[in-house]
Amino acid sequence: MAKVNKKIYSAIIIIGNEILSGRTQDVNVSYLSNWLNNLGVEVSEVRIIPDKEKFIIKTVNELRKVYKYIFTTGGIGPTHDDITSKSVAKAFKIPYGYHKQAYELLENYYSPENFNEGRKKMAKLPITASLIYNPSSAAPGFIVKNVFCLPGVPSILKSMLGGLKHKITGGKKVISKSISLYTVESEISVPLKKIQDKFKSIDIGSYPFFKQGKIGVSIVLRSKEKKRIDQCNKQIVKFIRKKKLKIIER
Amino acid sequence: MAKVNKKIYSAIIIIGNEILSGRTQDVNVSYLSNWLNNLGVEVSEVRIIPDKEKFIIKTVNELRKVYKYIFTTGGIGPTHDDITSKSVAKAFKIPYGYHKQAYELLENYYSPENFNEGRKKMAKLPITASLIYNPSSAAPGFIVKNVFCLPGVPSILKSMLGGLKHKITGGKKVISKSISLYTVESEISVPLKKIQDKFKSIDIGSYPFFKQGKIGVSIVLRSKEKKRIDQCNKQIVKFIRKKKLKIIER
Repeated sequence: MAKVNKKIYSAIIIIGNEILSGRTQDVNVSYLSNWLNNLGVEVSEVRIIPDKEKFIIKTVNELRKVYKYIFTTGGIGPTHDDITSKSVAKAFKIPYGYHKQAYELLENYYSPENFNEGRKKMAKLPITASLIYNPSSAAPGFIVKNVFCLPGVPSILKSMLGGLKHKITGGKKVISKSISLYTVESEISVPLKKIQDKFKSIDIGSYPFFKQGKIGVSIVLRSKEKKRIDQCNKQIVKFIRKKKLKIIER
Repeated sequence: MAKVNKKIYSAIIIIGNEILSGRTQDVNVSYLSNWLNNLGVEVSEVRIIPDKEKFIIKTVNELRKVYKYIFTTGGIGPTHDDITSKSVAKAFKIPYGYHKQAYELLENYYSPENFNEGRKKMAKLPITASLIYNPSSAAPGFIVKNVFCLPGVPSILKSMLGGLKHKITGGKKVISKSISLYTVESEISVPLKKIQDKFKSIDIGSYPFFKQGKIGVSIVLRSKEKKRIDQCNKQIVKFIRKKKLKIIER
């Protein structure tokens, strides 16, 4: 699909009590965000919400009106606590039941004696959804309008993104450049602010880090305009040299 | 403070473009959630939002009316992209400027020649806020009513939680019990649903995992009622044994 030049915005909804309880460390946000950025889609916000029908319906309906793409992760498995499919059906007021194509897909994948109730449940979807192919374990993800529903298990989620790429129309890609140096943020905050004021189209972030017992800062420039990033970068390198700070990485 | 028996709900707001861009993997959600759970405070939802004033104001004002406690992380450092303090001041319509106590604290911590503009900025807060002590690097966090603002750097955040404990009044603590076994979710989904229907006060989660090339499921029981958890656990172990599935961990 043709790339458009304007910005494309999206949101991610992580559905899962296990993330909110602290039991499980989410890794899907950073993976999906990186993947979307590479397609020219910005992630504007993320919501992490519980496996509660009302909560899912409310969040999906709120965000799908604001952003071009919504991605949900989690809650599409075979157990009683997997209620994303049903909730998304309700959000869109689409009947929830056996999805013909999904049912056939799972029926072909499993031998008849193994196609049990739990596995059949994974064919229950908003009945008009389009499917997202799952090369890992057959049970598909699905799309309703601008809402893309993916599983929560990171390895399965990753394996499904390949087949999804052509369904996303991104804008111009954000380019980022980072400069890391040994210093503290307060040492560079004044010149950095001046440069930010000059380069309005660039989003300059400053992130402290600790590496091998030393304190440093990564300055990250993000923009769709490569030329401006290069100009901005030059000015940053200039003031760093002037201050005699040591650049570790560019 | 006395523990109360009712449920106490909270929300976490992660403020940072670096999380949304996928550059940085968030670890504060799981750390804070575990810490809060141990104090008897449930995390009902998490929002990850950009360093944008309007976004921060809107999110803080929306959530602080719904939950007893709000925790923000990120954006309280010395650089231009740190705008949480100013935004929270605006959300509460409290003047933003040098906070007397914070200024003195930082003034005492740094030698006069090192107390530069960047460091002074960290004393700019909603002027009536109470401070959260920072044993790592002096720059304090702060509290306005039910909103607790913490830094984004995980090691600093962790070091500040100790001094915060007595300011949180939790409810009865959620107890969790997990049983891990080698199986697939679809194999246990029917009996598990039956047990969930019987034990309404218990939140039963089912989470697939991959360990040393084998597929397994962790069944997690969460509730404030220890006795019910034990009863529920017994029934789960019973059906696992009946199905001749192997329990790895209890």
